[in-house]
Amino acid sequence: MVTSSGNRVMVVKSGGPTAIPEWRVLFKEAIPDLEIRCWTESGALADIDYAMVWEPEPGRLARMPNLRLILSSAVGVEHILADPGLPRHIPILRTVPPEAADQMAEFVSWAVLHLHRDIPTLQQQQRQRIWKFHDPPLARDRRVGILGMGMMGRRCANALVALGFDVAGWSRTRRSIPKVRAYAGACELRPFLESLDIAVCLLPATPQTQGILGADALRWLKKGACIVNAGRGQQVPRLDLLAAIDSGHVAWAILDVFEQEPLAPEDPLWTHSRVIVTPHVASLPSRASRARFVADAILRFERGERPVTLYDPMLGY
Amino acid sequence: MVTSSGNRVMVVKSGGPTAIPEWRVLFKEAIPDLEIRCWTESGALADIDYAMVWEPEPGRLARMPNLRLILSSAVGVEHILADPGLPRHIPILRTVPPEAADQMAEFVSWAVLHLHRDIPTLQQQQRQRIWKFHDPPLARDRRVGILGMGMMGRRCANALVALGFDVAGWSRTRRSIPKVRAYAGACELRPFLESLDIAVCLLPATPQTQGILGADALRWLKKGACIVNAGRGQQVPRLDLLAAIDSGHVAWAILDVFEQEPLAPEDPLWTHSRVIVTPHVASLPSRASRARFVADAILRFERGERPVTLYDPMLGY
Repeated sequence: MVTSSGNRVMVVKSGGPTAIPEWRVLFKEAIPDLEIRCWTESGALADIDYAMVWEPEPGRLARMPNLRLILSSAVGVEHILADPGLPRHIPILRTVPPEAADQMAEFVSWAVLHLHRDIPTLQQQQRQRIWKFHDPPLARDRRVGILGMGMMGRRCANALVALGFDVAGWSRTRRSIPKVRAYAGACELRPFLESLDIAVCLLPATPQTQGILGADALRWLKKGACIVNAGRGQQVPRLDLLAAIDSGHVAWAILDVFEQEPLAPEDPLWTHSRVIVTPHVASLPSRASRARFVADAILRFERGERPVTLYDPMLGY
Repeated sequence: MVTSSGNRVMVVKSGGPTAIPEWRVLFKEAIPDLEIRCWTESGALADIDYAMVWEPEPGRLARMPNLRLILSSAVGVEHILADPGLPRHIPILRTVPPEAADQMAEFVSWAVLHLHRDIPTLQQQQRQRIWKFHDPPLARDRRVGILGMGMMGRRCANALVALGFDVAGWSRTRRSIPKVRAYAGACELRPFLESLDIAVCLLPATPQTQGILGADALRWLKKGACIVNAGRGQQVPRLDLLAAIDSGHVAWAILDVFEQEPLAPEDPLWTHSRVIVTPHVASLPSRASRARFVADAILRFERGERPVTLYDPMLGY
């Protein structure tokens, strides 16, 4: 709506109140008359046209009578869908700036190379002052599989192909990409996993992907396979993963996401000798790139266009 | 020469006596009438046409009167040149199978991504159970420089460009490669190093490259820059490097090569909190790929062609 000052209003809950001045500067350039307000000092709720949020308190969005568009401040939307009072008729935007996929491709390239070249074993040897090596296989003899072939997954698949790996991708619906073997749907999950040396999970959080890499799926992997999870923690149930590692079936896991974040200091994952913990850093696009993406989406929305990364309730992401 | 059995003879010192049966199988296919003998049971020295060696005992090659070609079992030749009695008129082949450059590109891609994404800090945090991150810069904002733009260096530069890094290369003579800023010669070493966030040393061992990344050169790097050494240990003098790290000027070093290998168990590099030690694994082409390369070079040599990777005394490698 148009406020008394003639501006549109966006309330922001991302990075806390101290980030508000930076968001103001970043949006000023793209949409000069967009007024940015802090979530905790939002003024009259009827003023608010847009809400850019991470984990909004349940029930609060429903109390904004003129809200036109909800913008997730990140790629995922499950932190918004978790609100039982969410006004379901309002569209939700997933914020996927090009930087997000670039950073994910860097992280996944690092993680896959780290496992491929058995760096975790070399680092254990360093701690024990042991000089020992074995001939590594070449990347072309290493089958890497990506679960989730959306914008992120496709970008990662292309990066791994460029590094020389033998790459496969699994997704809900089949995605054809040059040099990437395509698997799709529940029936092809098992043959896909059975073929892998390294499995990389990049799935969105939906009821269908919850627990997808549980005890059965982990057993389908080759003995000695490795896991990278940069999707959501709920997709690789921790007890199943720890059992698969402790039995020697899964060799190493690089985990960037967890069921509870931040990971609690007492969590045994921190100290497990075969688990590498990173603090949800795989894809951290800058505020500048997210502001550019959100501003562009708002302008498209106001012109009556449909932003391409709108949440689709039928797909769950 | 032609022995009584009509065969040519190659004596092998690579992988020890236990590797001889494997070398025999590997060469059998490519040159069926090449007789492989163990270095320590070589029979009559006058029989020997070829010697494929790693660190031959000084004086021994000189006692093979009919030796036609010396084949280093790896890329470097300094372990052969170290023999004061080396018969200088006999050509020396550097063994550089395509796999060697592929593996080096994998290792350098891993090392650069590891430093770029500040994984060493994240691993220190894991040990302290600290959940903390900062926005990483994008690869395109990270300047990576390669010292040594031979076959290995060029392959690595291309891999880093594909990953999105801002890449520069320094070499004796200028090498023009798409998207790689080219620096050359002693005068351009300083401006090259001053521009870098991450310096990757891939130089061959020559009198000119000895100590090239000493105290002065390390000071030319930006504060907080990182070092990767996969060339030769002598190129980054350890006391200079440790001083640069301990002063905070160099942030991290990934070292795959050392002045003495294997690194002695009491060496303080093993336990330095800002040094990552790998046991000379960056490029470990398989025996199969090295046998293919050496067999091909011998056949070319016997046809009167000049193998492209012959040691050049004028260049020193």
